[in-house]
This record gives sequence, C-alpha cells and structure tokens, in this order.
Amino acid sequence: MRGFSSSFFFNRASRAIHDHSSSISKLLLICAISGGAHISFSETQSEHSVNSVQTFTDVKKKKKVLVLGTGWAGISFLKNLDVSSFDVQVVSPRNYFAFTPLLPSVTCGTVEARSIVEPIRNIIKKKNGGIQFWEAECIQIDAANKRVVCRSNVDNLLEKAEFLLDYDYLVVAIGAQVNTFNTVGVMEHCHFLKEVEDAQRIRKNVIDCFEKASLPNLSEEEKRTNLHFVIVGGGPTGVEFAAELHDFVQENLVKLYPKVQDLVRITVVHSGDHILNTYDKRISSFAEQKFQRDGIEVKTGCRVVGVSGKTIDIKVKSKGETYSVPYGMVVWSTGTATRPVVRDYMEQIGQTNRHTLATDEWLRVEGCDNVYAVGDCATINQRKVMEDIATIFSIADKDNSGTLTVKEFQDVVDDILVRYPQVNLYLRSKHLHSVADLLNDPQKNERKEVDIEGFKSALSHVDSQMKSLPATAQVAAQQGSYLAACFNRMEESQLKPEGPLRFRESGHHQFRPFQYKHFGQFAPLGGEQTAAELPGDWVSMGHSTQWLWYSVYASKQVSWRTRVLVVSDWTRKFIFGRDSSRI
Amino acid sequence: MRGFSSSFFFNRASRAIHDHSSSISKLLLICAISGGAHISFSETQSEHSVNSVQTFTDVKKKKKVLVLGTGWAGISFLKNLDVSSFDVQVVSPRNYFAFTPLLPSVTCGTVEARSIVEPIRNIIKKKNGGIQFWEAECIQIDAANKRVVCRSNVDNLLEKAEFLLDYDYLVVAIGAQVNTFNTVGVMEHCHFLKEVEDAQRIRKNVIDCFEKASLPNLSEEEKRTNLHFVIVGGGPTGVEFAAELHDFVQENLVKLYPKVQDLVRITVVHSGDHILNTYDKRISSFAEQKFQRDGIEVKTGCRVVGVSGKTIDIKVKSKGETYSVPYGMVVWSTGTATRPVVRDYMEQIGQTNRHTLATDEWLRVEGCDNVYAVGDCATINQRKVMEDIATIFSIADKDNSGTLTVKEFQDVVDDILVRYPQVNLYLRSKHLHSVADLLNDPQKNERKEVDIEGFKSALSHVDSQMKSLPATAQVAAQQGSYLAACFNRMEESQLKPEGPLRFRESGHHQFRPFQYKHFGQFAPLGGEQTAAELPGDWVSMGHSTQWLWYSVYASKQVSWRTRVLVVSDWTRKFIFGRDSSRI
Repeated sequence: MRGFSSSFFFNRASRAIHDHSSSISKLLLICAISGGAHISFSETQSEHSVNSVQTFTDVKKKKKVLVLGTGWAGISFLKNLDVSSFDVQVVSPRNYFAFTPLLPSVTCGTVEARSIVEPIRNIIKKKNGGIQFWEAECIQIDAANKRVVCRSNVDNLLEKAEFLLDYDYLVVAIGAQVNTFNTVGVMEHCHFLKEVEDAQRIRKNVIDCFEKASLPNLSEEEKRTNLHFVIVGGGPTGVEFAAELHDFVQENLVKLYPKVQDLVRITVVHSGDHILNTYDKRISSFAEQKFQRDGIEVKTGCRVVGVSGKTIDIKVKSKGETYSVPYGMVVWSTGTATRPVVRDYMEQIGQTNRHTLATDEWLRVEGCDNVYAVGDCATINQRKVMEDIATIFSIADKDNSGTLTVKEFQDVVDDILVRYPQVNLYLRSKHLHSVADLLNDPQKNERKEVDIEGFKSALSHVDSQMKSLPATAQVAAQQGSYLAACFNRMEESQLKPEGPLRFRESGHHQFRPFQYKHFGQFAPLGGEQTAAELPGDWVSMGHSTQWLWYSVYASKQVSWRTRVLVVSDWTRKFIFGRDSSRI
Repeated sequence: MRGFSSSFFFNRASRAIHDHSSSISKLLLICAISGGAHISFSETQSEHSVNSVQTFTDVKKKKKVLVLGTGWAGISFLKNLDVSSFDVQVVSPRNYFAFTPLLPSVTCGTVEARSIVEPIRNIIKKKNGGIQFWEAECIQIDAANKRVVCRSNVDNLLEKAEFLLDYDYLVVAIGAQVNTFNTVGVMEHCHFLKEVEDAQRIRKNVIDCFEKASLPNLSEEEKRTNLHFVIVGGGPTGVEFAAELHDFVQENLVKLYPKVQDLVRITVVHSGDHILNTYDKRISSFAEQKFQRDGIEVKTGCRVVGVSGKTIDIKVKSKGETYSVPYGMVVWSTGTATRPVVRDYMEQIGQTNRHTLATDEWLRVEGCDNVYAVGDCATINQRKVMEDIATIFSIADKDNSGTLTVKEFQDVVDDILVRYPQVNLYLRSKHLHSVADLLNDPQKNERKEVDIEGFKSALSHVDSQMKSLPATAQVAAQQGSYLAACFNRMEESQLKPEGPLRFRESGHHQFRPFQYKHFGQFAPLGGEQTAAELPGDWVSMGHSTQWLWYSVYASKQVSWRTRVLVVSDWTRKFIFGRDSSRI
C-alpha cells in the first residue's frame, strides 16, 4: 500500500490565508484573483478583534444603559452609541438583526433568509466588548425599581431561566406584535409576515399547497381551493408579498407544476378603498392596474371577520354582506399591536387610555424617568402649538406690549419650527414660504402686529397637519441614531443646551426634538417593476425604479456579508430561478 | 408634483433578459459581463421546457414503474432511466434530493441547507413529462395486489390524504431510518444527522447552547454543561460533524462568545476500538491524533446505554462500568435501521429473520416478483461459491470425466468471477493473479486436473472475503444507475441475455449481476484537512486532500445551481466566516 503526506508549502499557504482575520482583506484578495470586480465602499468601518473580556473596574463611573430589542431602532441606537461612556447591555430573544423590508422576498425564495440577518454579536463585536448581549425575553419592566425581569427562551436543562437586570437608562426598542383585531381564527389558521421564521413558514406552505394540489385523488375544485392564496392587508407588506407570490408562480412554479398552473388564484383583501393608501395616489392606482393585468384579485372596502380551517369570511363594508371563500393559505399582514410587556408597563406608569406607549418629542416615556422608547412600540405625543399659544405669545412679546410685531415673532420662529414640526407640514400644505405669512390678515395683507386673539386665530390651524409617524424601519432607524446622539452628548448638553427655547419654562431644551426626515418609500410590484415615492414629491414607477430599489437596498445592508449575499441571491434568482425544495 | 414613467428601452431589455429561459445562457451572459470566470462543463445536458401534459393514450403498451424514494438510489435510477418505454411515477414525502455527504457542513453553516438540495421536479422536468411525482409517504406495500398505499403528509384542509398506486415494477429506494438500538431516551433527547431538517435543528441548537451559556445567572459548571457537545458514533458522519463543530467554535464562535471559549468540550463516543474503523488504519490513526491535538475527546470502546434530559450514560465495555456525563447537546449518528413499511413488507413476503430486505445479485427482492430494492433499505444476498460448487464442477466438466482440467476450468472462470464477485476480493487478499492459481496444490505447484473433492478443497475459502456493501451514497447511486440500465435493456436482453452462465439452470442470466466499483471515500477532519482512501489502495491525508475533496464534491453536485451555490458558500465562509444567527 502506498501513501504520502501533505505538502509543506500547501500547508503553510493555506494557513496563511486562513488565519488572516480581516474580512475586507480577504475580499480584496478574492477580487484580485478573480480579476474584474469593482468595489465601492459606501461606509468604512475598521474591524477590531475582540480581545480579552472587558473588566468593569470603572463601571461605577459609567451609567448602565439597558436596551430591549434588536430591531431597526435598537440596532441603530447601538451602532451610533459611544460605549466608552456607558455600560451597555442588550436583551432580546432574537440574537440577530433582520433586514425586514426584504422579508417578502424571503417568502418565495428570491432572497434567502440567512442573507438578510446579521448576528447581534457581529454588530456589537465592533464595540470592543463595550456591549453585552443576553438572548432572553424581557417579560416585565419594573419601572419603580429601575430593573427588568428577563427570561431565557431556550429549551434547556437548566431551570434558572429568569434573571433581573438593573439600569440607569432604559431604551425600550421592543417593537410591536401582529394585530389580529381579535378576529376569530386568525392566530390558529393564518400566517404572519413579521419575522424571518414567518417568511420561512410561508415559503414551505406555498410549496405544500402546490404539492397537495398535484396529488392524484383531488377534484379540480379541491385543487383550486388548495391554490387559492389570500392576503389580508393591502399595505406595502401585503402588496409586496402578493407581487412576489405572483412572480414565483409565473416564473418558476408553472414549469414544475404544469398541470395546475391555471388553477392558481391570488386575492388581496383590504379594508380601505385603495391598496397602498399611505402612498401617493398615482402609485396606488398603478399598483391596482398592474394587479389587474396580472390577474391578482383586489377586494377593497372589505374586512375579514373570521377565519376557519377551510374558509375565510369577508364582509363587504358598503353592502354589509358577508361571504365565505375557501382558501389554501392566508397571510395576515395588517397593522401592529402593543406587546403585553409594554401594555403592562403602560399600566404601571399610568398610560392606560392609549393604544401605544407615549413619549415626548425627545423620545422620553411620559410619566417615567430615564426611560426612552423608540420604534414601533411607541408614538410621539407631539405637543400642539395651540396648547402653548398663550405662553408662546408672552415669551415672544418681549416688551410686554400686549401685541406682537412681526419682528418679535420672527425671533421665536426658529424655535417654534423646531419645537412644533407640524408647523412646517402646515406651511407646505398651504404653499406658504414663511411662518410670518401666518400673521397676514385674511386678505393676505401683511399686518404690522397682532394681539393675543389675532395670534390665536392666525395659528389656529397649524396643528391640523399633525400625523403620527408611520411604524416603518426608516422612522425606527432615525429615532435610534437620534437617541444615541443625545446619549453621546449628554454631559456637554447639560452644560450647554442645544435645543429650542422652552416655552413653558425658562432656558432652552437640552436637545433638539426628534425630527423625522422622510427619504421616500418603495413598493415593489413584481415583474421587475417597483413604485417609489422620493423626496420632493417625486413619484417613479416601472423597471428603472426596480434598479433604484436594488441599489438602495444593497447599500442599506448592515454588513458587507449581507450585501454580498443579497446581491448574489438576486443574481442566482436571475440565472437559476427560485428554488422550490420544501425545506 | 412631478413624475415620469419607465423607459421603453429599459423595459424591453429587462424583458428580453428575463424571459430567456435557458439557465446556461444566462450564466454565460453574467460571466461575460463580469469578465474573467472560466466555466468547465463537466456534464452537458440540454434542458427542455415542459410542454403540455403528457397524454397517456399509449400507456397500455408501457409498463408502470413505481419508484419509492428520492434519495441517491432513487434519483440515480430516475436520471438514467429511458422513460419513453415506461410510465414512471415517484412517491416520496420529500420533494427534493439532498446531497447528504455535505450534511455535516450544513450543521455549522459552512454550507447552507438550500445549496445541497435540488427539487425533484427540476430533475424530472428534464424527462419531458415522462415522470410523475407525488409528494406523499408510502405507508404500505401490498405485494400480492401489486400496489402501494400512500398518504400525503401535508397538514391541510382535505381529508382525502390516502391514495393507491398500481405498478408493474416497483423500485423500493426508500432508504433507512436512524438506529437507536432501543437505547432509552435517544428519540426524545438526541439530535440526528440524517436529513436536512436535522442539520438545521442542530445548527440552531449549537447557537442556543452558546447563548444559554452566556446568560448572566449561570455558574461556571452550568456553563460547561451547556457547552458540552457529545457525538455518539465515530463513523464518517460523527467524525465529520465533530470536526465541523470544532472549526465553527474555534474560527467563528470564540470571537463572538469570548467569555466562554475555554469552557467548550467536544466528546466523540464510539463503541469500536478506533474511530473511522471502516477506513484504512492510517486514516483512523491520523484522525485520532488530530482530534487529540484539537482537544476533541475520543472515547472508544464505549457504548451509550441511556440518555436523560440532563445526562448521558456511557458504559466502558472493557471494564463493565457505567458513568453519567452532563451534556448540552447530543448528536446520535450511529448506524441505520429498517423502516416500518419495509419491515411490514418483509413479513408479507416471508423475510422474517433478517434485519434488512434481501435482494439477489440483480437487486430483485427475494420472494417477490417484479420488485427491486436499491440503496440503504436492502442488502444483496450474494450466493456463495460453495453453495453451487457441485453444479459449477459439473457444468465445467464438459466431457463428464469426473475430473476438471485447468483448461475446462478456464472456460467458466469469467462467468464465475462475474457471478461471484467475492472471488476477486479473495484473490486480491491472497495476492493471486489468476483464478486458475486456486487449483494449485498446497505446495503451489500447478496441477493438471482435480476431482470434485480437490475442487471443493481448492475453492473452500473463496467466500471468506464476502462483505455486505456499506450503506453509502456511492453504493446507492451505482445501484440506481445499474438498475436503470437493466430496465432500459429489458427487451433486448430477453432476446439476447447479457449475463454470465447460469450454474443451476441452463442458459445465461439476463443481466450481469450488480458490481460495485469503489472509487474511494473521504473523511474531512477539520482545519482544512481531509483524509482520503483512493482506488488502488492509495491513502492521502492533509491540506491538499482537502482541495481534492472540494473539487470532487463540487463536480458531484446534481445541477449547476447547487454547484454554484456550494462553491459560493465555501467562498463566503472563507471571507466572512460562518453565520451564527439563530434562524
């Protein structure tokens, strides 16, 4: 028998490449070898390997910051926080961050689940041990004692599943849960599209429906039932899933299940009058027309009132009629609801009459000290101009004359615009250029000065454009980074406040309030067509917008790994189509 | 408000690329654009789109072939079968083929689960509708009536889950299940490594163990328990998984869980004296030394006698002692056992005293007509030379002289070697060049002729090297393609038999018996080192063998899609490491 041992050179070369720990260097090495890829660095972050465990000898000086949640808001907060000043801990039952806008793409295999997740520990590793992560669920916020109760969700040997964590500052970024509107049968029979596991379950179930419909002992009616996909909710998630499903069926499944291709039916049930009704009307209309061409049935003005194992009950609001439709699969993608732990916390702090946790404009929870809330779990309780109108007047009226000149008003305008962002929305809706124009008389003539009643009358409608911020990833991410910036400047801003004039007290606010900047939104509609609302009221629809969508979503990935994976998934789908293995 | 619609050109260009249905053309297009990849076509297969549903007007002339199973044997049979002559149906609860040798790589994320699966419908699509697939489980083989009872495994609305399928020929390629040896607690507490879902569960559980061990309220002993990974079975699957786990921990997890890296412990429990004892001894020894250097504990001569929720009971065979060890996760990867449906079938046809289904050397089930069995579910009941020694002598002794000359013997030698492959194994083990050497006298002198007693004595040991074929993918795949070749030549070979001389009847066998050709086997041992047994008794171990392993496994993928995905997974692992998100 003959044999030989490994070559010395090969051994050393492999080890040299293998041990080189920098991902970016390896990527460059690979690209040099393959010859011809251009990399643009959209963000530069150096990676440091984690050295020894950070000793907390100086922990007494650092305030403890506890973050609940690893979604858009929580991760944005952590990434931007300067951890050298704080002792930071994160608690979440989910040890990864998920790029949720791509969840509909995961449902049908356009993108793989693993391409859109990034482990928390990868993200916090870059903070050199300054952040600790516990994979557990927060089951109770004990605001009085400034601590939370957490429970590990891992099935395991040990009984010690619960533990307590103290905090000096708590950041609630816990998100929301699916809202079933207490509709009977939804929890038992419907799929949701909130988490990665939901998308994976949907993917398996779509294939199950096709395989089941292909069995030899079914009638045509039974096959049609199995292939009836109902999507409840005509918002962006529901619409995008309907579009993905349609593409999956038309581009990939009809080739594999040729006998049943004509039996497939996709229905979108929406309670409003138009799908995508939070978008520009032209996008709404474009989407409805495209769905009509694609054969996707859109039932607007309809509400689902019950779901059984076999049928879904739909009520036509205008007629008051309810009818039942048999289905193969239902995906429930309507709005969100408050999680029980937040509900319990709201009751502790006296916020009993609200749907969501209320914060002030600085994202501080109302009725509780040192607790902040960001993302879907909270809404900003924006103070109205009219609530403070008297004090605004008296502060602006420096000479206490009882009337306000335009100049006196101009001195406080900037602070008003920062403190009450709804004013800007109102000005834009009325096509006014400057706040001072509000003081004009009803005939649009400039007035030299106004008294308190005239002032109230002039500003009486500025609160009319107030809207809650939508529960989107963009809002959550901006809130997270805003809050981190505030934390980073906590000490300096105590000495030198950065915010606008206080109207009800003296001095200035410590920070500027949170200001959301809308960068637009996409609505992929299938067939390589996307609709986009862009800043400046631009609307764009069609194939070129799809490419814009690709480039924006590629650049928004949180790491190079996920960026490469997502782009390669899109390439793989283009070349080989979507996979239909039931795993 | 402004807006614009999509460009005409872009629209048309996208559609042109999108509609082009040939994957190979798209791949070439992508490569031309990226500039610099070299593709070698290891197999050329043209793809035909599935046209209309095949009408079975001519089905009366075609025999019905029913295949149970979509593993290595079943798929190999289907790929090589000429479906124009048969009406082929496939039944399996699994609608995809899984490249099982890469399952250990999936457990730790070196390779993704979806990269090693190929939908059955993709594979059979290339047969132009000549094969029908039903996603269901065969729950009973009714041999007397030549039909099987199948049940769909999809949770669904319909009650009609069972159906019957008739056959003219049945190919049982149903594989085997895990063998727990009736050890208490194994089914409830252990992980297996047989299917893709098993590998995915193991992956999540490994991360769970690390996350659990990182929680703040555990003692060091509890953390060590959580991080104790026990692998039961020191065969190739268990060894490869242990190696993968070690690499995953050392290369990726220690950076993310730095506080617990020193608490990890991996133990391999094996009942034999050496791990990899079906391999060459040098490979066995190399593996044991490497594991020792890596800190993987190998307990040979030990058998697991019970598993509870917290501990695993190990009996040291030589001492008769049993001790308990606490564990975080157990992976059970010992041998295989017969599935209940096959067990039931064996009782129907009178094979009650055996562990596995017995076939003859032509893979026909013994005791049943028109049923074949391939792969792990069956073993070949190879006829012994000594059982037929008298008839062999009488057929060889053409002149009925009562003695056999060397020349007379030479005339039947070829048929003997084909009919009884164990003879070749015996010759090689004795370093004999020719069968005729067997007739030499004890002093190795040539004899001119032998009588029946001398003949019996000379060939008395030729059956000593008979071994059952191992339950491997290689054996299953070769059996599947052999059987397909037999089916393809069924008519011609009835007119003109291709097989060796019949010793117990007149004429020739219809086909040559199945002959397994061993192309070697690999054992990846981690750290980019692999051991390989290659044909011709070559043994190779080390880094260069790892590259051989990469290239062989890349070339063995069943489709270009999986080939590209597996290679890109290896590249991704090299650059970014393995992902540790718990999805």
